[in-house]
Amino acid sequence: MADEAPFQFLHNEVIHYIYKSAENGETENGKNITKLENMGFRVGQGLIERLTKDTARFKDELDIMKFICKDFWTCVFKKQIDNLRTNHQGIYVLQDNKFRLLSQLSAGKQYLEHAPKYLAFTCGLVRGALSNLGVKSIVTAEVSVMPACKTHITCPSSDQRHSHKD
Amino acid sequence: MADEAPFQFLHNEVIHYIYKSAENGETENGKNITKLENMGFRVGQGLIERLTKDTARFKDELDIMKFICKDFWTCVFKKQIDNLRTNHQGIYVLQDNKFRLLSQLSAGKQYLEHAPKYLAFTCGLVRGALSNLGVKSIVTAEVSVMPACKTHITCPSSDQRHSHKD
Repeated sequence: MADEAPFQFLHNEVIHYIYKSAENGETENGKNITKLENMGFRVGQGLIERLTKDTARFKDELDIMKFICKDFWTCVFKKQIDNLRTNHQGIYVLQDNKFRLLSQLSAGKQYLEHAPKYLAFTCGLVRGALSNLGVKSIVTAEVSVMPACKTHITCPSSDQRHSHKD
Repeated sequence: MADEAPFQFLHNEVIHYIYKSAENGETENGKNITKLENMGFRVGQGLIERLTKDTARFKDELDIMKFICKDFWTCVFKKQIDNLRTNHQGIYVLQDNKFRLLSQLSAGKQYLEHAPKYLAFTCGLVRGALSNLGVKSIVTAEVSVMPACKTHITCPSSDQRHSHKD
């Protein structure tokens, strides 16, 4: 039995619940992604606080990203990020070749349109974790081939720090 | 880092979300417990299906309850039920002396009134799991001393089966 199963099933149920409420006219459909993102944000904040309780201070932003890719990702998804790339100017791309929250969706292209609602929570999760570590960010995610997922992180503050140095 | 943390934080967030929606007038307050119970039901159905994929057929209802106390509880809460009691007529009491979903609440009596919303999901979880194994049940839970929790399961069908034998 995979350890992440309870989390995964609950996550699916949350998506189902939020979208079902919207159908009943309780909420606007367009707000659903935002709601999932916000829930992720708060969960990310809580998790990173507990995860970094006993860790050493981070050297820099890249050091933080490496922690997200290894410890944080493993805690939530029971695997590490497969590839981390950066332009060293505040843009990071995290690739997970087998993203767990998509693994219950069929691999065909016909379900690609449903991917965004399965990614919103995770975008918030990363943004919340970074936020608690003092890094403001914009986080988006994309799926081109199921179940691989690319998470794009843009940290505007890095550019500012860069400018200040000039 | 405890393995159940992502699940636990997400569970808290779901409660927060449902109660916050209610404050905004989107839903009736009285329905919140039912909503949490329903989410638990569906998660329980999914989990038990995956958990019992490769297990042998259960001998009887007590055998099923033992599975719930050991494998199912461990999967979700990373520990077994501490004590299982039954009257052998369809009533079961499962005691967890350190129930994980209450462990973030302070141990004082002043938070006892908040316990029901932290138990509703789990009641549904157990009812959903049993339902998928063909056991209809009524599941309630109570907390007298934090963070210990007693889950009461009543299976009306057992009494019927008992009567048929007479």
